[in-house]
Amino acid sequence: MAEQENLYDVIIIGAGPAGLAAALYAGRDKLKTAVIEKLLPGGQITTTDRIENFPGIVKISGVELVMQMQKQVESFGAQIKTGREVSALEKLPDGNIRLKAGKDEFLTRGLILAPGSSYSKLGIPGEDTFRNAGAGVSYCGTCDAPFFKDKKVLCVGGGNTAVEETLHLTKFASDVTLIHRRNEFRATKVLTDELLEKAKDKNSNLDLRLSTVATEIYGSKSVEGVKLKNAKTGEEENFSCDGVFIFVGTKPNTGFLRGFVDLSDEGFIKVDCGYLRTSVPGVFAAGDCRIGAAMQLATAIGDGVTAAMMVKRYFADPDLWNEPVSEDPQGEGW
Amino acid sequence: MAEQENLYDVIIIGAGPAGLAAALYAGRDKLKTAVIEKLLPGGQITTTDRIENFPGIVKISGVELVMQMQKQVESFGAQIKTGREVSALEKLPDGNIRLKAGKDEFLTRGLILAPGSSYSKLGIPGEDTFRNAGAGVSYCGTCDAPFFKDKKVLCVGGGNTAVEETLHLTKFASDVTLIHRRNEFRATKVLTDELLEKAKDKNSNLDLRLSTVATEIYGSKSVEGVKLKNAKTGEEENFSCDGVFIFVGTKPNTGFLRGFVDLSDEGFIKVDCGYLRTSVPGVFAAGDCRIGAAMQLATAIGDGVTAAMMVKRYFADPDLWNEPVSEDPQGEGW
Repeated sequence: MAEQENLYDVIIIGAGPAGLAAALYAGRDKLKTAVIEKLLPGGQITTTDRIENFPGIVKISGVELVMQMQKQVESFGAQIKTGREVSALEKLPDGNIRLKAGKDEFLTRGLILAPGSSYSKLGIPGEDTFRNAGAGVSYCGTCDAPFFKDKKVLCVGGGNTAVEETLHLTKFASDVTLIHRRNEFRATKVLTDELLEKAKDKNSNLDLRLSTVATEIYGSKSVEGVKLKNAKTGEEENFSCDGVFIFVGTKPNTGFLRGFVDLSDEGFIKVDCGYLRTSVPGVFAAGDCRIGAAMQLATAIGDGVTAAMMVKRYFADPDLWNEPVSEDPQGEGW
Repeated sequence: MAEQENLYDVIIIGAGPAGLAAALYAGRDKLKTAVIEKLLPGGQITTTDRIENFPGIVKISGVELVMQMQKQVESFGAQIKTGREVSALEKLPDGNIRLKAGKDEFLTRGLILAPGSSYSKLGIPGEDTFRNAGAGVSYCGTCDAPFFKDKKVLCVGGGNTAVEETLHLTKFASDVTLIHRRNEFRATKVLTDELLEKAKDKNSNLDLRLSTVATEIYGSKSVEGVKLKNAKTGEEENFSCDGVFIFVGTKPNTGFLRGFVDLSDEGFIKVDCGYLRTSVPGVFAAGDCRIGAAMQLATAIGDGVTAAMMVKRYFADPDLWNEPVSEDPQGEGW
């Protein structure tokens, strides 16, 4: 057990579901544990207002779920340190890891990286200019839909999130148009069916345009419209609207880890998917930030728990980084 | 989508947390889904009366949690078929899988194996009588240690799990005694050293007894003690305690799968831990039954979700069995 005041057993970077799940297990094991969070607890799940696919809870909001998890984590003694951005990470010769976060410096025996992922951008003119819901560009329907009550919005994307969020927006905005660059939606059948059904209704406020891309967002003080282009014919059009919702995927929040652990070309943290070991002994990764992540709430939480158990195994077995994943999880008989 | 009446898109064997999580996701994707269960839904978790380590739910019983999951699964259209033991499994030339369960025969395009595992028992009088943490017999220190705060417990076993869990219990219980039938522990050196070190300390709350077996657990409403026998001398003793933790291994419930999918020597289903693919294309495994499982509720649920997502990927990509695990989980962009 860590005895120096600023020496922790386990430090977790990121207080989203993966990080909080890891903290719950580490705290429950009476390891001296801290979670370092750049902003506030919760991560991306807090932008979801209805979670219906988390096994065990019929319906809950992201914010409510995170509050439950935070309560659990703190009841088992792990500290959550918010508003601290990690600026430096170093593996020391004695095996410990030193990290700077805000003005603080920490030492830890084991580190779990759980920084999550962020929204991808279109990268078109006007996107950054109007980058807040007040000015008209948003990446989160759940968060910002109420600001567009009785207004006209354009949504961009074709995956699960795009379809879910577009359906959500139809409850607020007067007119919603979803454009997608491909000629069919990639979302699951259940969602796509619901979307098509909704658009077909003759009083619908929802319009769908496939094979269409946005090339520019324009306006003076706020968004006034978007330039659209037909991906097949090349035909262009000025589409008037008050807001643009961009749902085109996410990127792992791993920029600060470059040079510390190995990342994939896409920026995901390289791990073995059995033990979640990164390229640096004593450092694990969990959740959306790692290669092969299924990007679901339940899988992020599973990852967090696995990482916390593996940290403990690493403390008991300093050679863990040289070992193949065990076939027999309990390792024995008696 | 499956059109023949008895042809399913996804069949899941086992209605524990892993199987129910998979069914929730498959049902939500509008796949024709059935869960085949030998007994009743729930599996091993239903023997747990207080779950406090499931991220998102502060406290719940195993039975209550399973009822929630069952409700979710059925609301999304998956069928749960209980009281049906699988007696035959066959991969057909057309790629479908045929299975017999009870008197019924099913065909399915995708199969998820989630039969779970069982704790090995001592098989002594009283073990079943007091079989839940409230009554005093437990098989999981990580789960139940906090319920034995300031109490006196006896632990049984000599492998890694036994030693780890015993050390864990010393942080909670006032007195912990570990008995082992052999004359030395089988756990790894680092763990055994830590155990011996801890026991040697003059203020230690840990006592070790080698060459000792338990022959009976006794008590009225809950555990009051255990009859011990010295394996060398035959000498007997009544050992007073409030709880008994039995760490003598777990066995995957995979006997019926021998000859159908590849199993490890210990009987765990061989999978790649990224996509959970077994040796048979179209057949996945999730939860405690698979090699490398972390054997926790949260990790079983994560597995179930991953397996359901991978079945869908397999339907979209029949060559999935030839592919390495993708580094980019979204695999798409927009």
